[in-house]
Amino acid sequence: AVNGQRLWDSLMEMAKIGATPKGGVCRLALTDLDREGRDLFVRWAKEAGCTISVDQMGNVFARRAGQDDTLPPVITGSHADSQPTGGRFDGIYGVLGGLEVIRSLNDHGIATRRAIEVVIWTNEEGSRFAPAMVSSGVFAGVFSLEYGLSRTDVDGRTLGQELERIGYAGDVPCGGRPIHAAYELHIEQGPILETEGRTIGVVTHAQGQRWYEVVFTGQESHAGPTPMPRRRDALLGAARVVDLVNRIGHRHAPYACATVGMLQVHPNSRNVIPGRVFFTVDLRHPDDAVLARMDQELREGIATIAADAKLETTRFEQIFYYAPVTFDTSCVAAVRAATERFGYSHRDMVSGAGHDACYLAQVAPTSMIFVPCVGGISHNEIEDATPEWITAGANVLLHAMLERAQS
Amino acid sequence: AVNGQRLWDSLMEMAKIGATPKGGVCRLALTDLDREGRDLFVRWAKEAGCTISVDQMGNVFARRAGQDDTLPPVITGSHADSQPTGGRFDGIYGVLGGLEVIRSLNDHGIATRRAIEVVIWTNEEGSRFAPAMVSSGVFAGVFSLEYGLSRTDVDGRTLGQELERIGYAGDVPCGGRPIHAAYELHIEQGPILETEGRTIGVVTHAQGQRWYEVVFTGQESHAGPTPMPRRRDALLGAARVVDLVNRIGHRHAPYACATVGMLQVHPNSRNVIPGRVFFTVDLRHPDDAVLARMDQELREGIATIAADAKLETTRFEQIFYYAPVTFDTSCVAAVRAATERFGYSHRDMVSGAGHDACYLAQVAPTSMIFVPCVGGISHNEIEDATPEWITAGANVLLHAMLERAQS
Ligand SMILES: NC(=O)NCCC(=O)O
Ligand SMILES: NC(=O)NCCC(=O)O
Repeated sequence: AVNGQRLWDSLMEMAKIGATPKGGVCRLALTDLDREGRDLFVRWAKEAGCTISVDQMGNVFARRAGQDDTLPPVITGSHADSQPTGGRFDGIYGVLGGLEVIRSLNDHGIATRRAIEVVIWTNEEGSRFAPAMVSSGVFAGVFSLEYGLSRTDVDGRTLGQELERIGYAGDVPCGGRPIHAAYELHIEQGPILETEGRTIGVVTHAQGQRWYEVVFTGQESHAGPTPMPRRRDALLGAARVVDLVNRIGHRHAPYACATVGMLQVHPNSRNVIPGRVFFTVDLRHPDDAVLARMDQELREGIATIAADAKLETTRFEQIFYYAPVTFDTSCVAAVRAATERFGYSHRDMVSGAGHDACYLAQVAPTSMIFVPCVGGISHNEIEDATPEWITAGANVLLHAMLERAQS
Repeated sequence: AVNGQRLWDSLMEMAKIGATPKGGVCRLALTDLDREGRDLFVRWAKEAGCTISVDQMGNVFARRAGQDDTLPPVITGSHADSQPTGGRFDGIYGVLGGLEVIRSLNDHGIATRRAIEVVIWTNEEGSRFAPAMVSSGVFAGVFSLEYGLSRTDVDGRTLGQELERIGYAGDVPCGGRPIHAAYELHIEQGPILETEGRTIGVVTHAQGQRWYEVVFTGQESHAGPTPMPRRRDALLGAARVVDLVNRIGHRHAPYACATVGMLQVHPNSRNVIPGRVFFTVDLRHPDDAVLARMDQELREGIATIAADAKLETTRFEQIFYYAPVTFDTSCVAAVRAATERFGYSHRDMVSGAGHDACYLAQVAPTSMIFVPCVGGISHNEIEDATPEWITAGANVLLHAMLERAQS
């Protein structure tokens, strides 16, 4: 078993970097705080005897050598970046849980046949640089390196520039090497485990996602003397799409999710009819055919709304898509076996969120382990988990990895 | 008659300060660019023989002495601040039109019995610091000086601090002195004059306004694993209010205007259900009873929408209200007479926008002169007017002022 107290303490230590007033974390990808978090992980990993390498996307690999170091490794990890108002567990739990596996193997003097690597994947959240999981995507060959490095934040800075700036632009090629198995440990970020009183989610699938960027252009004019029928109000159109997206989500209940998370109004002045609005749409469903139907409904709805409100859709782009993921059955079985070994209550689950594991699944046998989070709340400063859950997940990870690392 | 070419040249010279790529102006209140614009006006006014004084709200008065300088003056003026993406005429036309009156009186060697003053009113747009017309409001005793100086921009800087910073915090008391008559010359900012092919709007009334600030608070959570029925999406609620406000505007056609011009999403991240949204509402109608009905509909609608979307209305404040204005009948008559003297086509009009004249009307006989603007477009970089219109309006102002300044 792992040392749950040590893992908890490490999580709390890490959570000081970018701590927010309400007990959360703001550690946006490739900011100075992200660098501090990476530096702390690197120090701890070195203290645990690991060697560190950094690839061209800034993914950080901490490697504990195997007895036969020529064999493809077993890897685990997640991300160290957060949402602007994120929690203390999202992502970093999978990184420090992996580190705890290595520390525990050291404690017990256990050598593994294959090397074990713990990874920080760059910019998983997709919040500072869209889309999400961009660096595990490059690793898996889903995106080109050029695409990854050219992602841009709202201030126009590229991911590549920011990697250089914080000193994490490595020279190891990103991806292209064999991985024996990959696991990712994460909080559920939804309400199911907690509601059912179960400790471990054996993640068998992840839902598919489509992300869009939309710009409506109307005409700025004065909020006073411009008669209602003459208006071309870009915010009115965008508002109707927000409602449409919500209806699409409800229409495909119970599994669909549909969200407008980001919206920017131009010129955003009280007495000016908005002339331009940028907004994003996020559609998800575990069934690719339903997701395609949702996409169709979005496209048709936007066309109708734009025509109605006399707007031009000056941008409509699907910037991110991946089909629903089926995780590797033997990895899933190893997770289930490890769970049962400890007697943890569990259930099979579909991940509602995207994870680096979703891309890794394209190039290696992969699966995920979930633990509950309080109230099912994530992407929120109040995100929380109990030490018992945190320990249980790491125990399952340890045994699932061990099984693979000896094979 | 005025020198139309000189007025046009002065407008174009002033429009270089804060010029935007699409031919407009961005000269937000009390920025460095606003200071530059003020400095240019002050230089021109001094060259025209005026004395300058600046009051505690930063209102700038350029005075051409009268033969009996103890008599209350005849004043005119408007504002030099702009919208973020504003035009070259909104406000500044009324200031430089007033300066052209003084220059023309100088050209013709005409002395007036009463002094004539041309005023720049601070922060009329209400864009950087809400509400609009705050400094003419203090001058008219509608707002206290403390209220005016404590208005705050989105970055938390106060109007008073910014006046100090740009060197326009004067020591003359704001208001409290008699004004014989006040005129304001402005572009219409709506489509009526141009559509009807008329040159001069004789402004008899201005519609009433109510401005609101609203904050909806829901709960931030993850856009993926959070089931639709559990969501408390603050943007969904705000979007429905945007649609509601639009419906209120249409319901009270043809005179009502109803706009959401500003909306800010928190945390504004693509895969986070928005936890908090701030937005503004602007309702207008020439009939105060209808405006009160619109207010009622807004309040009821917001309560229903918030309850439906499981949101808290953590802020709902009417931050600005003034009743419809009836301008002084003899000022209006002087404008009509001046218009007819030049044979300009004209019509009586209700102002859709708020203007400093709306507050001055509370303390002095006041009225306004409108000229058309191209396509009825204002609060837009493409705002435009012809030299003929610009000259015509200044001619009318000259004669309306002369009539009063000799009385
Ligand atoms: N786990 C997580 O929050 N991932 C971000 C990508 C997503 O929105 O699913
Ligand atoms: N004229 C003008 O644009 N005034 C700003 C106040 C308003 O929105 O009516």
